[in-house]
Amino acid sequence: MAPEVRDALFDDENLTLLTRIADTDPALTVTDFHDPVAADALAAAEALFTGWGCPPLDTAALELMPRLRTVVHAAGSVKHHITDACWERGITVASAAGANAVPVAEYTVAMILLSGKGVLPAAAAYRTGRTWISPIEAIGRGGNYRRTVGVVGASRIGRRVIELLRPYDLRVLLYDPYVDAAEAGALGVRPVDLDTLARSSDVVSLHAPELPATRLLFDARRLALMPDGATLVNTARGSLVDTDALTAELLDGRLNAVLDVTEPEVLPASSPLYELPNVLLTPHVAGSLGNELTRMARAAVDELVRYAAGLPFADPVRPDALARSA
Amino acid sequence: MAPEVRDALFDDENLTLLTRIADTDPALTVTDFHDPVAADALAAAEALFTGWGCPPLDTAALELMPRLRTVVHAAGSVKHHITDACWERGITVASAAGANAVPVAEYTVAMILLSGKGVLPAAAAYRTGRTWISPIEAIGRGGNYRRTVGVVGASRIGRRVIELLRPYDLRVLLYDPYVDAAEAGALGVRPVDLDTLARSSDVVSLHAPELPATRLLFDARRLALMPDGATLVNTARGSLVDTDALTAELLDGRLNAVLDVTEPEVLPASSPLYELPNVLLTPHVAGSLGNELTRMARAAVDELVRYAAGLPFADPVRPDALARSA
Repeated sequence: MAPEVRDALFDDENLTLLTRIADTDPALTVTDFHDPVAADALAAAEALFTGWGCPPLDTAALELMPRLRTVVHAAGSVKHHITDACWERGITVASAAGANAVPVAEYTVAMILLSGKGVLPAAAAYRTGRTWISPIEAIGRGGNYRRTVGVVGASRIGRRVIELLRPYDLRVLLYDPYVDAAEAGALGVRPVDLDTLARSSDVVSLHAPELPATRLLFDARRLALMPDGATLVNTARGSLVDTDALTAELLDGRLNAVLDVTEPEVLPASSPLYELPNVLLTPHVAGSLGNELTRMARAAVDELVRYAAGLPFADPVRPDALARSA
Repeated sequence: MAPEVRDALFDDENLTLLTRIADTDPALTVTDFHDPVAADALAAAEALFTGWGCPPLDTAALELMPRLRTVVHAAGSVKHHITDACWERGITVASAAGANAVPVAEYTVAMILLSGKGVLPAAAAYRTGRTWISPIEAIGRGGNYRRTVGVVGASRIGRRVIELLRPYDLRVLLYDPYVDAAEAGALGVRPVDLDTLARSSDVVSLHAPELPATRLLFDARRLALMPDGATLVNTARGSLVDTDALTAELLDGRLNAVLDVTEPEVLPASSPLYELPNVLLTPHVAGSLGNELTRMARAAVDELVRYAAGLPFADPVRPDALARSA
């Protein structure tokens, strides 16, 4: 990882814990496995503590680490650096995907509550009008009593959202092709097909991974199923949504959106979405940032503590699960 | 209550429940106790179901209702219509203050999560720049890991906020002169004096009633105690905060604010708060609106169901508590 990533991940507590269980050099941050400065440390390394910007652990890189047995990643997805060569070598892998799910779920819950009520459009109207607005008219048919939320994908984030929504008077629908009725029941949600979810939800929140099967999951046809006044929240990946079709619905004022990700990832400056009162665009900030990086690092350190104690990982990454997760 | 309030409060379910336990005329809405149209109904009434806009139940009004024994209010505060004459007559009173606390607490939790992370200023920067922003820089030292939230007032709303914040990695401080250490412990919060709360909180959320003792609770001196980058959330009453002093802090960029109420209640059109990126102004919408009115009505109907069954109210209003609540 880059030195600035290390600085963001390691507070004193994380550093103390790590140095207590591992022979480690906190001053050494490797960004290129082939950098001679890192050669001795890599040759001796039994464990790698990786973060954002870690280069691929391909065969050539692994040859420099003959003693490597485990990789603990202080971030969500390991798809950028864990290769088949790692699995073939029998290297075990853990990630902080669970800790990374927390802030995304928190952002989502906040946005679901604000969307169900229609708070941000009311704020925009107040800002524009600068005069008294009837609260009853400003909110209209909004409100978070017995509203329906559609969760797309029982990923770690989707599950955390479901959990965090429990104290509210909301009905939660779930679409996930890998979750059966019994599991949905245990989660306290109603499993439905995706069209039913789109048709029945006041707020739809996307928590599916980016896969060929999820590309344009919300295309023009499915967006058209959403009821008037519904909100689409996307903290997953921009490619899950047909941006042009969504833009048309938003320009029309029929739907609302909260978009932390888009395709393209930064919308062109000419996009009307920047200014529409029924759209909140955020610059890909729902994931771990600021002090939330410390939480991810802590989760990764805790995995290394388990490894050092001869215990299994709390949250191992398994190669077969990668095909259907982020 | 006004006919439009009745229409907003009563969905089919509430109406069915009410007509099942009471001899009631759903078509009759009284806005003036001295209106001759209402005379017969009032003369016979044992219970009043009141809502927003109910005129004061003073001696003259009560004389028209010799059989009146109870008043159930489908809203939060009863201070506008319950008079000493009601208590002297031994009339019992219940309100939907508990149900009304729910949406305010939900708004607050959403704003605490967004404020702790710094999501809305990041959105404003993205909207203005219309180009890629580094998420790490956009959020800076934000994030909701181990942040400190200061709750001012263990009102119904304050308590609900405390409860809803439990699943998050947040430390909650409470200032409330009527809550002792044992009760604070049971709530899972740390009781502190108000200056300590101001000094130690990343987000301060106001849930105190409007009373002489709470006027300008956050004056220039106390606002100055808040750490750089902290956020003040006010869903209570504008009079709790010195607007000029807060405006100066916000113009300076030192603090952030989420204000659902202000003093004056609509800020002058010239106020800089409408446009500042570190301020979110909403037009007094945190309370029950839209379908949340149905929740309040349901709570009031449930109280009448208890009354009809000879049971005590779940949430009675007591005259001695009114002096220190909203």
